Amino acid sequence: MTKIMSLRGRDFTSTIDEMKLLMEPRSVALVGMTRRTGKGAFNTLENLLAIGFQGKIYPVNPEATNILGLKAYPDCASLPAGIDLAIIATPRQVVPTVIRDCIRRGTKAAVITSAGFAEADDTGKKLQSEVLSIAKRGGMRIVGPNSLGIVNNFSNFTSAFVPSPTDKIPIALVCQSGGFLNGFAGFTSGKSIDLGNTSDVDFPDVLQYLGHDPDIKLIALQIESVTDGARFADIASKVSKRMPILALKIARSEEGARAAASHTGSITGKAEVYQAAFKQAGIIPVRDVDEMGDLARAFINVPPLKGNRIGIITHTGAGGIMALDALSQNGFEPARLSPRTVDNLKHLFPVWSPPTNPVDMLAAAITHGYGKVYRESLTALLEDDNVDAILCICGIPTLKAIQQVADGKAKPVITWITGEWDETLLPKVKETGHKAIYPTPERAIRALAALREYNCLATNEAG
Amino acid sequence: MTKIMSLRGRDFTSTIDEMKLLMEPRSVALVGMTRRTGKGAFNTLENLLAIGFQGKIYPVNPEATNILGLKAYPDCASLPAGIDLAIIATPRQVVPTVIRDCIRRGTKAAVITSAGFAEADDTGKKLQSEVLSIAKRGGMRIVGPNSLGIVNNFSNFTSAFVPSPTDKIPIALVCQSGGFLNGFAGFTSGKSIDLGNTSDVDFPDVLQYLGHDPDIKLIALQIESVTDGARFADIASKVSKRMPILALKIARSEEGARAAASHTGSITGKAEVYQAAFKQAGIIPVRDVDEMGDLARAFINVPPLKGNRIGIITHTGAGGIMALDALSQNGFEPARLSPRTVDNLKHLFPVWSPPTNPVDMLAAAITHGYGKVYRESLTALLEDDNVDAILCICGIPTLKAIQQVADGKAKPVITWITGEWDETLLPKVKETGHKAIYPTPERAIRALAALREYNCLATNEAG
Repeated sequence: MTKIMSLRGRDFTSTIDEMKLLMEPRSVALVGMTRRTGKGAFNTLENLLAIGFQGKIYPVNPEATNILGLKAYPDCASLPAGIDLAIIATPRQVVPTVIRDCIRRGTKAAVITSAGFAEADDTGKKLQSEVLSIAKRGGMRIVGPNSLGIVNNFSNFTSAFVPSPTDKIPIALVCQSGGFLNGFAGFTSGKSIDLGNTSDVDFPDVLQYLGHDPDIKLIALQIESVTDGARFADIASKVSKRMPILALKIARSEEGARAAASHTGSITGKAEVYQAAFKQAGIIPVRDVDEMGDLARAFINVPPLKGNRIGIITHTGAGGIMALDALSQNGFEPARLSPRTVDNLKHLFPVWSPPTNPVDMLAAAITHGYGKVYRESLTALLEDDNVDAILCICGIPTLKAIQQVADGKAKPVITWITGEWDETLLPKVKETGHKAIYPTPERAIRALAALREYNCLATNEAG
Repeated sequence: MTKIMSLRGRDFTSTIDEMKLLMEPRSVALVGMTRRTGKGAFNTLENLLAIGFQGKIYPVNPEATNILGLKAYPDCASLPAGIDLAIIATPRQVVPTVIRDCIRRGTKAAVITSAGFAEADDTGKKLQSEVLSIAKRGGMRIVGPNSLGIVNNFSNFTSAFVPSPTDKIPIALVCQSGGFLNGFAGFTSGKSIDLGNTSDVDFPDVLQYLGHDPDIKLIALQIESVTDGARFADIASKVSKRMPILALKIARSEEGARAAASHTGSITGKAEVYQAAFKQAGIIPVRDVDEMGDLARAFINVPPLKGNRIGIITHTGAGGIMALDALSQNGFEPARLSPRTVDNLKHLFPVWSPPTNPVDMLAAAITHGYGKVYRESLTALLEDDNVDAILCICGIPTLKAIQQVADGKAKPVITWITGEWDETLLPKVKETGHKAIYPTPERAIRALAALREYNCLATNEAG
């Protein structure tokens, strides 16, 4: 294979190969596997069998000969040679020995889920250094320690001891907390990695791998700290040209930074430094998990935004006003409907209230029905060259019609579904199949602004 | 009755009596009632029967003798004398005659749902003036026109032609758009009024009534424009001492303000003027419908906040860090746990990771189970005098335990439920009965800040 680039003593291709051992292993050793099963057992093997992993599994437990129907090995020295990945959940003091034994058996990658290392005390800090130097000498890559590791729904693989959603969503998540891996980011990802204490495998390694991943359309980062800022910016700026990268920087406050030190042993820098690095690297920063989910939903579900003129269709006058406020706040223009659009739609509207933008369709709906008016209005705006994207404001009954009209079209159509987003509303939304949905106009329009931001970056690059 | 205060030629008591005719009528005439029924019929009568209205109903329709089993009257002149309220849905040009006839039959209150008035064209503007002057001469109060009117779940009453939630929630909503009335504010209200074009009944009238309403604990306002700013501030500052008032000012942008003129005929002022008026009147401003719902949920479901020191219990280290960031952003302090609390909890935690704030309970939960650790931690923090409120960070399985421990306690306990708030998560949340729930730490802590803000206002007043 050709070497693509050289960074920190490793070439691009070999990093990708190393990452494949971690992300898409064909054989795994589960070291320090619990024999408890069922609810609250935190049993990785059970989790791995449940999601249908197709590779070979080697449980290691000195007190068992068989776990969940699989032969168990007493120690790592007894394992077959050449296993792709070791997932290590032993007490912390045993980890150096385990790593050494695995390296001897030819294993080149490990996820250490055990905690009590650099995030804990001096003993833990020393242990982490020891583990790292053994691994480096042996040519082994380490994820963690203090990490849930990897969930890769495209390979039916997980190293985590807690279950997570199994959808093959084209979003990859790189984080420094198992809490994120396990879906708390407000959206589901199809492939994710928790770097934990980030002693070895770091954001740039994962970005190199994801930049060439055909399964992935968007990368989301949750960052406490990045160690090698220059390498991170260099690789991220290449990857961000291929797909959008969103980043949520946490530990922004003094208190948060102190807590990060005892969470992953991170030393966090100033928030402004990160913001500048994100900008330089073409990364879109987000404020919170709501915004992370909102932007991801837009990037994954709607086509690129090609201009600044937004059409609005609404069943409520106030909703239209709130949407206009949100456009103004995000530097968008309300589209001026073309004479043809006005002409096509005016037969639906009262004489004293002809169609304009926002298209306030309540009066028309009372006469002609919501479905018909929404369908015709959305079709007309999609065909109008003066309109670059459309915000629909509606309730559940109209959502199916919106999805049918918008599906496959080249313009972004996003929807603010009015009403309380509660346990009765969301199942009905799901049924319609419409996915570019938002609970407020501000959040919907912010998502459109992110599409524009990414598109501008791409365009500037091309020009 | 004693006259309490005199404002704009009306005394306080009589305004409340007038508002009662509108909000809690015992008899209603439905003028211009459609004969269509079922889905998409926009039939107020059907809606009114469905929610179980106990008063008398008089449909008026020149082409029917009977609608949905009720005797129909050909015109308002034929109606019995002294009906409390007329709900008017006729074409706009007929409205002046209808109002005149209703006044002659002794009706003193009307909701005009018909549109096409000041929000539409010059004809509409003239019609609205005409209606208003007839009403003023006849001593009739008008809600609207261009309004859905009133939904009062405590009286099983609605004037709206679209259904809305029927829960008797102690939140009142005063808005200028039917879209809000119909629940799109992100929360459900038990009593609400859409002022529409606000030709007569205005925010101060409704605030006078709600300030004395035993069913209501919180008032939410959606404002396009307020006509008499001084009267509004005067009355709101009195009512805000009795219960919190939240306000969402819309039409903040130039485009939004232009659209407001054609939505309700409003002339909106500068956003800063409103913010200053809100502050003076003790009103808590909100940015969007998410925040409106978030703050309402805190005020209704948790006890008052008495200090600034927040305890955090979390199943994810990153979650704790994000919560600390949010505390810092809102001027809160992380609580220092008392030695007694640390002592009570340390048996659950690994030696290398003793309990501190945030209480990061993952390691403890792996050994002792989530339920036990969460229950003991929350109990200890509730009993700790160094802790003024607690943010719980958890997933669904722990939520029931939190609710059981927090229920009836004198300290605020609010919860960030991690994970995607989707159609599978929310029904499970509902089952637990825990209501002070938030999808991000930022939104949870912002809600606590609003509690503090209101409490300070109340304390300053007392002092």
